[in-house]
Amino acid sequence: MSNPAIALDAMGGDNAPQEVVKGALIALEADPDLKMYLVGNESDVSSELSANGYEGDRIEVVHAEHAISMSDNPVKALKEKKGSSIEVAMRLVREGKASSFVSAGNTGACVAASSLFLGRLKAVKRPGIAVVFHTGEAPVVVVDVGANIACKPDHLIQYGVMASLYAQEILGVDSPRVGLLNIGEEDAKGNSLSKETHARFQQTGVNFIGNVEGSEIYSGKVHVVVCDGFVGNTVLKVSEGLAERLLYLFTTTVKQALAQVPEAMALAPVLKKAASELISKIDYSEYGGAPLLGVDGTVIIAHGRSDGKAIGNAIKVANRMAAIELNSRISEELTSLSGAN
Amino acid sequence: MSNPAIALDAMGGDNAPQEVVKGALIALEADPDLKMYLVGNESDVSSELSANGYEGDRIEVVHAEHAISMSDNPVKALKEKKGSSIEVAMRLVREGKASSFVSAGNTGACVAASSLFLGRLKAVKRPGIAVVFHTGEAPVVVVDVGANIACKPDHLIQYGVMASLYAQEILGVDSPRVGLLNIGEEDAKGNSLSKETHARFQQTGVNFIGNVEGSEIYSGKVHVVVCDGFVGNTVLKVSEGLAERLLYLFTTTVKQALAQVPEAMALAPVLKKAASELISKIDYSEYGGAPLLGVDGTVIIAHGRSDGKAIGNAIKVANRMAAIELNSRISEELTSLSGAN
Repeated sequence: MSNPAIALDAMGGDNAPQEVVKGALIALEADPDLKMYLVGNESDVSSELSANGYEGDRIEVVHAEHAISMSDNPVKALKEKKGSSIEVAMRLVREGKASSFVSAGNTGACVAASSLFLGRLKAVKRPGIAVVFHTGEAPVVVVDVGANIACKPDHLIQYGVMASLYAQEILGVDSPRVGLLNIGEEDAKGNSLSKETHARFQQTGVNFIGNVEGSEIYSGKVHVVVCDGFVGNTVLKVSEGLAERLLYLFTTTVKQALAQVPEAMALAPVLKKAASELISKIDYSEYGGAPLLGVDGTVIIAHGRSDGKAIGNAIKVANRMAAIELNSRISEELTSLSGAN
Repeated sequence: MSNPAIALDAMGGDNAPQEVVKGALIALEADPDLKMYLVGNESDVSSELSANGYEGDRIEVVHAEHAISMSDNPVKALKEKKGSSIEVAMRLVREGKASSFVSAGNTGACVAASSLFLGRLKAVKRPGIAVVFHTGEAPVVVVDVGANIACKPDHLIQYGVMASLYAQEILGVDSPRVGLLNIGEEDAKGNSLSKETHARFQQTGVNFIGNVEGSEIYSGKVHVVVCDGFVGNTVLKVSEGLAERLLYLFTTTVKQALAQVPEAMALAPVLKKAASELISKIDYSEYGGAPLLGVDGTVIIAHGRSDGKAIGNAIKVANRMAAIELNSRISEELTSLSGAN
């Protein structure tokens, strides 16, 4: 099997292997050059492929003895479940058989396995998970959202550089505006991490616009928001929880209001369709997963609840990251930055 | 003027003094025993009172030479604008003339002035700002949201105790469930601050349910969420920004959907009313402001955009906190806790 090939963790996610296999087939159909390793329980994956009527030769099923579940302790699971689908898929990337890794499985296990089996890119100090929010005017990359919960200024600076390249090359944003998440916009705001990072960001080549508050993730002011992984993970969880809650409140409010007007019931299907379009528009899990920036290999972690479409999008992004050699660009930029400082 | 009296910063907030004066009158009407100092520019405040037709003797206007604006640097403004309305109102509390302080002005200036003019309650290490979210199933107190961005475990433990008392005595929650904001629910999750705080929370008398993720603020699982002020401030800003954005998206989505169905336009007023009820239901600025817990005096900081109703609610909460002597309860609990450790 020649490159580009994707190593896809067929056992990862809430809907594995069914939706993962569906995603693989969606991606294959969209790209006639794409090839793929589906890594997981061989008989489960093969019967899922048969169930979907797949008989081509662009997928190779690679058996993995174990699957790491969403609730497993990452480091413990990697140690005790030797030969898990995450491990086997990572090894395919390390051995150069696959150009990139995609999983909707246990995020912590993917991060830990990346560091075990792939290591860091040249000049990278700590990898970071970048999530793309589509709630605002433009897509916004928030990094780190949980790989690194003890960030130093160096790490945050590198996240800004890597995510800026990602926004530019993958999301097509010209000269992405990079902001440092802080509790106020004035330069001198924040804790010691913020203050030191702010001062140093101005010496990088990124289009740094200064401190931004959490509300700016949704305003269109900024394309990349850099933060410590503890804070970023909280931003992600708060956003998920609030969006879900508001959608529920909004739907019930509209339903109750319309129930008072008998002829309005005819509009229910129109509104229902509009609501579901809105939900899928703002749902970041649909948009191609979260790149783990800074590892020596292309790694995309899709949301656990990904359906086939979301997995297909994640594969597409992984393939593009590998094809344009984003990692070489990242290494170059960070090497020249560390030389400059 | 006998107690209870409220010292109200008439110059604080986006709509001062108009809405502050309106709020004062709303509160006076609701509580026949209430008295109030309105602190600010005497002629402005007096003419606002006249414009509202107030001629009673339960309000005393106290002149203040300056007003600190929302964008002023807090510490600098307190130093340079000696005799600001915040300072004069704080001094009324310190001198025992007023039982409590209410302002919709510059949060940082209120926090700094509290520490300058009132100091900390006995046994309290660091005051914290508590905001009550009404977005979920039940009200949820999040503390700290920005007074203390370099928290130690001691501080977080005390926030849990103080906010638990607040939830019980002011919000009427029986045995409030207290959670530690973290990036996962397992006991051993998080950074060093989370881990140490988690271990020690179990030795307090509060109903500690362990780690909670940011999404739980909206789920009904927890009544008090404890976090570092940097994280809490981000939670607040992210929530404000996302709620505003989603409400906009919902509204436009519904409008666009209905525009396709000619007879639906008749429903616009029904939906508009429902939307505005929803907004005011989830808008925490309507609910009585944020108590600054741990200072030696009752201090409520209302949202800058507060209208008369919101100011009236903040005054009501301040009055109740003072009346039930919540601060004595806080001191007792924390003293006995520090004795036990």
